[in-house]
Amino acid sequence: MRLSKLFTKTSKTTPADETARNAQLLIQAGFIHKEMAGVYSYLPLGKKVLNNIAEIVRREMNSIGGLEVQMSVLQSKELWEKTDRWDDKKVDNWFKTKLANGQELGVGLTHEEPIVSSLIPFVNSYKDLPVYTYQIGGKFRNELRSKSGLMRGREFVMKDLYSFSRNQAEHDKFYELAAEAYLRIYKNLGLGEITYRTFADGGIFSKYSDEFQTVSSVGEDTIYLDKAKRIAVNKEVYNPDTLKELGLNEANLEEVRAVEVGNIFPLGTKYTDALGLYYLDKEGSRQSIVMGSYGLGISRLMGLIAEHFADDKGLVWPKLVAPALVYLARIGTSDEEIAQADELYLKLTEAGIEVIYDDRDVRAGEKFADAELMGIPYRVVVSKTTVSSGTFELKFRASDEVKAVSLSELIEILAR
Amino acid sequence: MRLSKLFTKTSKTTPADETARNAQLLIQAGFIHKEMAGVYSYLPLGKKVLNNIAEIVRREMNSIGGLEVQMSVLQSKELWEKTDRWDDKKVDNWFKTKLANGQELGVGLTHEEPIVSSLIPFVNSYKDLPVYTYQIGGKFRNELRSKSGLMRGREFVMKDLYSFSRNQAEHDKFYELAAEAYLRIYKNLGLGEITYRTFADGGIFSKYSDEFQTVSSVGEDTIYLDKAKRIAVNKEVYNPDTLKELGLNEANLEEVRAVEVGNIFPLGTKYTDALGLYYLDKEGSRQSIVMGSYGLGISRLMGLIAEHFADDKGLVWPKLVAPALVYLARIGTSDEEIAQADELYLKLTEAGIEVIYDDRDVRAGEKFADAELMGIPYRVVVSKTTVSSGTFELKFRASDEVKAVSLSELIEILAR
Repeated sequence: MRLSKLFTKTSKTTPADETARNAQLLIQAGFIHKEMAGVYSYLPLGKKVLNNIAEIVRREMNSIGGLEVQMSVLQSKELWEKTDRWDDKKVDNWFKTKLANGQELGVGLTHEEPIVSSLIPFVNSYKDLPVYTYQIGGKFRNELRSKSGLMRGREFVMKDLYSFSRNQAEHDKFYELAAEAYLRIYKNLGLGEITYRTFADGGIFSKYSDEFQTVSSVGEDTIYLDKAKRIAVNKEVYNPDTLKELGLNEANLEEVRAVEVGNIFPLGTKYTDALGLYYLDKEGSRQSIVMGSYGLGISRLMGLIAEHFADDKGLVWPKLVAPALVYLARIGTSDEEIAQADELYLKLTEAGIEVIYDDRDVRAGEKFADAELMGIPYRVVVSKTTVSSGTFELKFRASDEVKAVSLSELIEILAR
Repeated sequence: MRLSKLFTKTSKTTPADETARNAQLLIQAGFIHKEMAGVYSYLPLGKKVLNNIAEIVRREMNSIGGLEVQMSVLQSKELWEKTDRWDDKKVDNWFKTKLANGQELGVGLTHEEPIVSSLIPFVNSYKDLPVYTYQIGGKFRNELRSKSGLMRGREFVMKDLYSFSRNQAEHDKFYELAAEAYLRIYKNLGLGEITYRTFADGGIFSKYSDEFQTVSSVGEDTIYLDKAKRIAVNKEVYNPDTLKELGLNEANLEEVRAVEVGNIFPLGTKYTDALGLYYLDKEGSRQSIVMGSYGLGISRLMGLIAEHFADDKGLVWPKLVAPALVYLARIGTSDEEIAQADELYLKLTEAGIEVIYDDRDVRAGEKFADAELMGIPYRVVVSKTTVSSGTFELKFRASDEVKAVSLSELIEILAR
């Protein structure tokens, strides 16, 4: 993308009405626009980051047999009354609205009920199970306070998968597959080393649920991690009994702040029973269906990654998440400089490499500052020096390392 | 996709609570689930169709310089009061909701106001224009009645692009580019021949706006079309003055029913002025910004295509829209039949062809009926006959033509 065609601009000023570092940086870099507290729109560069994260998640959900759907945002009251989750006294963060005829509707905050309900026409026999289905889309939660930028929004983008299994053993097997897929996702996002599968409260269906917690000073949660075993315990279930049960030794545990970047949850048969989704086994007897839910906040991950990796110069995106791999800065406006930069832009683009081409007639310092604030992994400079030497200046955003490289070396490094 | 892994099933029964033919067929074929009147969820095959249409639209919007964004669904009252579009007496199809603190919010029904507002930090000088930006996402309209299935939803998927130009001439040039892109979209969707650029009421900003109307007996609109000139006039502006102005002769016009599948609209400077989005020209004088909006209903197109092409056996998808190109029906359960079908599935998939592989152990008639109801463009049969002859039976959904083809012939036909 030519920067001269991108309508967003960076800003030197920290937005006055924003306290969260992730949102401050993303607004300053022109990635997002704040509509109100906890509600953001995604501008072109931010939309690319969001898509990149979603695509990493989608690939892994497909790899474990998930089929993608898109459930409606508008929800019918009758459906949620069947599971006793309509009343504001039971679920206190609904956004509600009304049809023109006065009938109350909900604005989707999660989708267990509609997913179960949508399966009723299709699931009857043991042959129709298991079912694994997911969506990536908007969720709406009427939070009292919202001060963490993208990390806790009132409107946010989430991946939610739901599993429907014939029995506990079939459920447990998929649950572990999903947990492994989650760990691959965090690895691809550049968070593998610092993300731990964490024992947390299981609610009424099981003793524990599994959170995925990324160690970060910006986290709202406290966890106790065993680095050698690569597991952690959430403070909410941290007690001698838990440690004993999990075979953990207090002496090996480290207390850290962390951000919950995923949660997988055994739901037992609560929703399937309440909504009447059963199956007939081989003998023709009616059986309950064991359900699980697997949440992962796409926009929260964007906020966490923005905030966690940032330095004093701005954002630092991991390669697979960045809105582009290369920031190509043309310094100088001579015919040779323009020709060399245009040609390099074309060659990189043809090689399938995403490039932000800074073709603006502004001074070098401004271009370099923008490349750093936007957090693009590689910066390549074309200038009088590079035109005369026939090499390009390559700088790594994360390490600040600088090299002179030939075109073939450059493409080889970028293709890695 | 192996059909044994797809959780949806076809149904022989027309849904009792659904009057629209498009929704009846899509529900029977397992593509969508009805949440309530005018609100549908997209199941795996329906989600694929929706994605295919969206991708065709996205490509064309990118080709005319559109940059993709994602605006929030939740809308602040203050913003819409500035243009006098908050009051229910002014805009009568808002869905509204409230924050926990009682503050009123809107649920996005269109996005002129937030798009203009999001540009304020970025647009200052003539150098910052033009801007072309679009999104593909959910819209919410509180329609009194909703009986047309996907063709007029309360929650629906729309592409909306907005243009911001320095003057009328720059606006007009892009407006024509967008109109041409729209015609390419309908052509790719298989609707090219029957879709007409149609003069319609321009509201308060200009004499005419441009609708794109697809001739179809299921349409709610009446238009008068000149087949030779490939333009049409909406009934709302059909009068002797209009005909004279457009150089049309009543004798050459045909009155037909049509579905509005797109609308591009000159907005003048109403929204930009009201929200204070101006630019400074070369001389440093403040100037108004000329805006246009370009809407296209993705889910409405899905409904129209479903209903328009359907025959008495079910859906008939155009190739670029279909959830898969091929329905591979394995007839028989011998080792040879299974091996040949598995191998063909693998070869077609490796060739980049999307296949629904009916690997279920059900009778041939059921497989053929499902292939037809789902509307997959090509059906390929593997059976005892094909195993012994070394050829495959290929049937075209739209024409009912049947051929015996070799593997290489098959791949050649499918790659077209």
